[in-house]
Amino acid sequence: MKIIIVGATGTMGKHLVSVLEKEHEIIKVGAHGGDIITDITSTESIENMFKQVGSFDALISTAGPTYVGPWKKMTDKEFRKGLEGKLMGQINLVLIGQHFIKPKGSFTLISGALTHEPQLNFANASAANGAVEAFVRAAAIELENGVRINAVSPTVIEASPQYFPFFPGEIPVTMKQLEYGFRKSVFGANTGQIIKP
Amino acid sequence: MKIIIVGATGTMGKHLVSVLEKEHEIIKVGAHGGDIITDITSTESIENMFKQVGSFDALISTAGPTYVGPWKKMTDKEFRKGLEGKLMGQINLVLIGQHFIKPKGSFTLISGALTHEPQLNFANASAANGAVEAFVRAAAIELENGVRINAVSPTVIEASPQYFPFFPGEIPVTMKQLEYGFRKSVFGANTGQIIKP
Repeated sequence: MKIIIVGATGTMGKHLVSVLEKEHEIIKVGAHGGDIITDITSTESIENMFKQVGSFDALISTAGPTYVGPWKKMTDKEFRKGLEGKLMGQINLVLIGQHFIKPKGSFTLISGALTHEPQLNFANASAANGAVEAFVRAAAIELENGVRINAVSPTVIEASPQYFPFFPGEIPVTMKQLEYGFRKSVFGANTGQIIKP
Repeated sequence: MKIIIVGATGTMGKHLVSVLEKEHEIIKVGAHGGDIITDITSTESIENMFKQVGSFDALISTAGPTYVGPWKKMTDKEFRKGLEGKLMGQINLVLIGQHFIKPKGSFTLISGALTHEPQLNFANASAANGAVEAFVRAAAIELENGVRINAVSPTVIEASPQYFPFFPGEIPVTMKQLEYGFRKSVFGANTGQIIKP
């Protein structure tokens, strides 16, 4: 399969590249590195990326910039980080990518447990996740030619211990569990699902 | 109680005004009419509205502009209607309004069944609803001084028969059910809840 990984230079993306590139052609997309540098907050940049890649079988996104910080400082300005990044960035990957993806291809976006289990300082990520998950369910009934879409929704991940103190009581997801969540979406047959790895 | 109703000139808002104004002081806020004209896509306009109203006990929002239309025509541009309207508009009502609301006051936003039960043409509303619902859960653990926040999430409403064909199999919510959903949020004690009327 030809698989685009957006966020390929991040913690999750690097792991997915390392395990999937043994068997698949991986196009690494990152904001600052990888095979193709792409700013997912720009529709032009996204379009240019897809034009370079051409047709593909699957797109995985682990790219989710959001604003993390105290509620007291959260205004429209900070909130837009997640709105343009994790929310609209990922949605535009699908709205634009549907014109390049092969029949029976798949999109797999990233959301997160904060949709249903909020934590202090992460209201922006909660909202972005909630939008992405509802979008995935809606897009699943709209996409044509057998194209599928799912989201993987992990809690805090094992490889990011710096976040552990912000997620009391959450058992970190191992990188293998995370990988298998994405495998379920890309190589399985479901659509419109929120996969908890 | 002093209650602000944002969207007061819309179908839901008019009904809520008519039943609540018998017992409460209602400030009617609308995009084109009411006591105070406010554009919820502008943080300046929202701030001016709150400055005019002063302190208040409850804010109800029934204001949810979104893009409705075929998936094929849905691009970043159309998607931003719901992003700026139902999503960021309502979130800014809370981020700004928290500085004006009385202790133990409440915010009640509008989401909708499309969060979990998508329909063709409504992906933009699904995403906005999902964001609003996740935001409500996150804001509930951040708001101070006993301030509460909930969302009311109806399916298609009885008073909008023009939408019935787009919601096959959905039993329309009566205006009384809708009203009681809002009553549960405003006059009850729960917070962080998605109320299905």
